[in-house]
Amino acid sequence: MNHNLNTPGIAKSAVARLHVDGGATLLNDNVVVEEPLEIRIGNRPFVVTMRTPGNDEELAAGFMTTEGFTHSKSDFKEIDRCRMASHPENTIRVRLSTRLNLDEIESRRYGAISASCGVCGKTSLESIRNSYPDIQSDCQIERSILLSLPDRLRESQVVFEKTGGLHSSGLFDKTGNLVCLREDVGRHNALDKAIGFALLNDIWPLENHILMVSGRVSFEIIQKALAARIPIVAAVSAPSSLAISVARECGITLVGFLRNPTMNVYSHPHRISG
Amino acid sequence: MNHNLNTPGIAKSAVARLHVDGGATLLNDNVVVEEPLEIRIGNRPFVVTMRTPGNDEELAAGFMTTEGFTHSKSDFKEIDRCRMASHPENTIRVRLSTRLNLDEIESRRYGAISASCGVCGKTSLESIRNSYPDIQSDCQIERSILLSLPDRLRESQVVFEKTGGLHSSGLFDKTGNLVCLREDVGRHNALDKAIGFALLNDIWPLENHILMVSGRVSFEIIQKALAARIPIVAAVSAPSSLAISVARECGITLVGFLRNPTMNVYSHPHRISG
Repeated sequence: MNHNLNTPGIAKSAVARLHVDGGATLLNDNVVVEEPLEIRIGNRPFVVTMRTPGNDEELAAGFMTTEGFTHSKSDFKEIDRCRMASHPENTIRVRLSTRLNLDEIESRRYGAISASCGVCGKTSLESIRNSYPDIQSDCQIERSILLSLPDRLRESQVVFEKTGGLHSSGLFDKTGNLVCLREDVGRHNALDKAIGFALLNDIWPLENHILMVSGRVSFEIIQKALAARIPIVAAVSAPSSLAISVARECGITLVGFLRNPTMNVYSHPHRISG
Repeated sequence: MNHNLNTPGIAKSAVARLHVDGGATLLNDNVVVEEPLEIRIGNRPFVVTMRTPGNDEELAAGFMTTEGFTHSKSDFKEIDRCRMASHPENTIRVRLSTRLNLDEIESRRYGAISASCGVCGKTSLESIRNSYPDIQSDCQIERSILLSLPDRLRESQVVFEKTGGLHSSGLFDKTGNLVCLREDVGRHNALDKAIGFALLNDIWPLENHILMVSGRVSFEIIQKALAARIPIVAAVSAPSSLAISVARECGITLVGFLRNPTMNVYSHPHRISG
């Protein structure tokens, strides 16, 4: 596997393309890179996530924030590569200005470690919902602008075009300008990177922004949007029942099957004008 | 949200379908159900996963096995609803015949809790690879049969057709017969359910079977296939770089972009004949 130094998210892999007729062609094809990233708090291991390399500082800041451990840029003193680690390229060290009680986090996590993410470290849905006030934003977006977002997202995707292997998350302002697009092999990583970018660049909280995701909307996407105070979440594909329920409860406008000329609105349609 | 008692994976949700021209229609649409499942070992909470209800016993057995805590049906004494829980419909209790050292598991998990799954509870990639011997199976499948599997999988999918919201995993024998198909809002849950079905029905280990997944292949899919001893993994979409590396190292035949009349073979092509 040869990694492309210009585009760290893409590697080359030998592949045999077989045809039903019996033919075979040998190719050197693009594949999306997946590697583990270890996030340390100081010198203490905190989490390992399988991600596409790139924007790792954003991922660390976004993950810690959407999981409820941090809340603003001022919670971070420093985020950098851990040069002491055996794989510095896959290790990020976070120094916090506030003191996290790691033993408490440990006990909170144990007993509710997620197999499929989203409730990672939370002992109940209630505790997640109770951690954040409802979204009250009076942000509005025009129907026609909202319907144009999937095309805008697709135009800006780099790695997916080359590998077919990525999820993407885009943050837009209410006039439809793309603020940040991140792609990753993991759907929550793409979202955490985009949210981490916003946090580290003082576009925070995201109470006047729209999140657009390439795939489906599960509970965890809504949970992370809630932590970042995003009022409108839109997706090309279907939402789950729990995503809908939590969006309704927490005041988030949830849009699914956003495919020009139509979209499905599951909650709080008052934020869509026109 | 009204749940459909005949198909527990589907609920009805009110939705406003907006049209770019300004029109709006109110619908009562099908959505895929997502709810938390807590797995307890005896009376001790072990894990919470967000899943589509149904086949929860299979999910528990499959999860514990593909994560390396159990290895065969005889490791389980009993798997049933936990009637003492406040939500018995979302709580499964596992009684093991072997004694798991939960404190050891706790320490193994801490420091490597996955944000995006797949390395959940493992402190390094090496430890995962070292837990299982390489796959040596001489199972072979004909090229034309392999190319027919996506259609066979699609024909048997029930919930996806109605909601557009699911991942599916199918286990096939080498003549192309579908042994088990499971659908779930979480990709690993669909796989864990299918593997759990096989384990509980004595189709075990799966050394003569083919796994077909609806989406992409990440590291964790290969990790779970390795634990179940599956020699051939095929997907409609792209694999990641790490999925390819681990498949090569561990002796798994990995097929991506399986779309008649062609497929991409990334490792160990000798298991595909014709």
